[in-house]
This record gives sequence, structure tokens and C-alpha cells, in this order.
Amino acid sequence: MYRTPTHIGIIPDGNRRWATQNGMNKKDGYEHGLLPGLKLLRAAKNLGIKELTYYGFTVDNCKRPKEQVVAFSDACCKAVEIIKDEGVEVCVVGNTGSPCFPDKLLPYTKRAENSNKMRVNILVNYGWEWDMKNGWLSRDIPRIDLVIRWGGMCRLSGFLPIQTVYSDFYIIKDLWPDFKDEHLAAALDWYSRQDVTLGG
Amino acid sequence: MYRTPTHIGIIPDGNRRWATQNGMNKKDGYEHGLLPGLKLLRAAKNLGIKELTYYGFTVDNCKRPKEQVVAFSDACCKAVEIIKDEGVEVCVVGNTGSPCFPDKLLPYTKRAENSNKMRVNILVNYGWEWDMKNGWLSRDIPRIDLVIRWGGMCRLSGFLPIQTVYSDFYIIKDLWPDFKDEHLAAALDWYSRQDVTLGG
Repeated sequence: MYRTPTHIGIIPDGNRRWATQNGMNKKDGYEHGLLPGLKLLRAAKNLGIKELTYYGFTVDNCKRPKEQVVAFSDACCKAVEIIKDEGVEVCVVGNTGSPCFPDKLLPYTKRAENSNKMRVNILVNYGWEWDMKNGWLSRDIPRIDLVIRWGGMCRLSGFLPIQTVYSDFYIIKDLWPDFKDEHLAAALDWYSRQDVTLGG
Repeated sequence: MYRTPTHIGIIPDGNRRWATQNGMNKKDGYEHGLLPGLKLLRAAKNLGIKELTYYGFTVDNCKRPKEQVVAFSDACCKAVEIIKDEGVEVCVVGNTGSPCFPDKLLPYTKRAENSNKMRVNILVNYGWEWDMKNGWLSRDIPRIDLVIRWGGMCRLSGFLPIQTVYSDFYIIKDLWPDFKDEHLAAALDWYSRQDVTLGG
């Protein structure tokens, strides 16, 4: 049997490094991450993946220079605009109570009950401390089977600590704007060969 | 500057696979993990590492066949006996309220305040659910900089979800009983080349 993950977490890291390598300002990397996000979503949908959760930006990220904060916040808003037309259930999860949360995403913060559509979550102004210290606020997001991270780092960087307790982590050296469908295929192939024990 | 982790998490996986590969019963793998644990501790101490946390066994692990449960529980008790003579501050962290917690380790469950010694923690009958659902019971254990896992899996398997939010993960394919000092050296060398941002 070819084992497929039900829910994949996506850490789309490397936008700023990509921008620098391509002679742009760091802030300009984020919008080059939009099309990859759409391509990944469509590929995952075609493969029958039930749920995707993208790591948009965090409370900590908002300490960066303002032009970067504006750029990644805009990119997340555009991402939701794009994704909502893809026939999926979109849900935005994050700290809506701080100024960094974009008002225009408020309508997307309620998770739809019972849906036959693929679910796509985006963490926006998310913080593990915000999540955990207030009694696991992200609890509507279910367990994640596979986390795929671009940009070469082998770490979670605060991504949903409880949902990832049993996740397998697959690291891709390429930077996120250089996403290729082959990355997802390689991750799924690797995942199918992991022995899942859920801590048992 | 050669960046060194202050606190290393150790996931000593692969004891049962090692036993099977060496023609033994699975349960007999655990005691072959004791000497590696001592060698690692001494090597880390020599390198000036301030704190080590070993993933002993979990509440979930206790669902395994009884002979295995007895074997890994005994191995943890022996590990504490060995470690306490190494001039370090030993602390055992886990669910002391369930029958799987060995009574003889109760004297080690209080973390020493102010100590100049290296600290060595062992998770015994630990469970992330026990830890988190009761209000972060492991909070005395500080943030972990580097997690090293033996046995090839790239996952945390419930290992201290909050302390590991910003950890870098280094995976070693060799099984834990085949520990070599070179593994630690390679992990530290790799770690020194990671860019630590703590989510910023």
C-alpha cells in the first residue's frame, strides 16, 4: 500500500534569500512565493490530499523591518484571494487581536464544519506562545502527518507544536520561490517509506 | 565564532531494530543503549555542553509488550544509576502518577536549583499530553537548541513540544546502540553552520 498523508504542513522558507540571490530587495521575495503556493495546492488537490496548512507569518516575524512586514502581510492576503477561488475550504488561523493581523482576513477565521472540500489553512500572525498560553487556540486544526519545509533548515520554527508532535519532517534545500511539483512528489515518496507509529 | 548549543536533546532511537539485526530479541536492545548514553554524556561534558535531555520512554511506549516495557524501564533505572556518579545534576521528568513510573526514580524528580554542574535530564514515562494538558508540567526544562536523533527518522515523536519549537534537528541514520563520538562531533559541526533566528 502506498501510504499518503491526510494533512500536510507547508513551511515555505527562503523567500528573502531567494530575493537576495536574484538581485532584489528582501521584501520582494514574498510575492514570488504566491504562484508556488497555488501550484502546490493544485498538485496536492489532484493527489487527493485532504488538508494543507501553510505557515504564513508569525507574531515574531512582525519584529522585522516594516517594509518586509507589509510585504509578507500583503502576500498572505493575496494568497487567500487566490486560494478561495480554488474550490477549497479556506481557514485563516492566528492572533486576530494584534495590529499585525490584516482586517480583510477576519471573514476567513472561522473553520467550516463538515465539508467535503479539501481544507486549506493559512497561519497569519500566528504565534506558538499565543496558541499555547491561551489554551491551545489552534485546536480546530487536526494532527499533521507530514511537514515539508523549503530552504534547507531542519526545524519547526514554532509551527503548530501540538499538531506536529508525531509529524514526519521532509526538508528541501531549494528555496520556496523555486518550488517544483517534483518536490511534492519526492516528499510523498519519502513519506510513504516512513514507519508511522504515532509514539507507540 | 564556533556556535555551540547550550542544551541538546537526545532521541536514542533504534534499539529494537539493532537487536533484531544482531539476532537478539527486541527487548534486549535497550541495555545495549546504556553504554552509548554514558559515552555521549562524557563527550558532551568534555565539550562544555551545559545540559542534555535524553528521551527515555513515554506513556505511549508502555502499550508495548510487557517484556519490552520491563526492559526499557530497567534500562532507564540503570541509566540514572550510572549517570548520578558522573558529577552531573540528574533530573527525571515524567508522569510519576501512573504505574509505569519506576518508584526507585522518585528521588530524582526534583530539579536542583542553582547548580554549577552540567545538567542531565531523562524523560521517564513522559507524555506530551500529560505535559501539555496539565499546564506545561516540564516547564523547568529550558529551551533545547539542538535535537539529535539516531535511527534515521526525522520526527520528534512527542519529545518536549514547547522546548523544541526553535530547535534544529540533526538526524543520524545509525541506530542508537551503534553510537560513536563522531556522531556528536558531526551534529555539532552541522549545528554551528545553522543560522539561529529564534523565529525572528
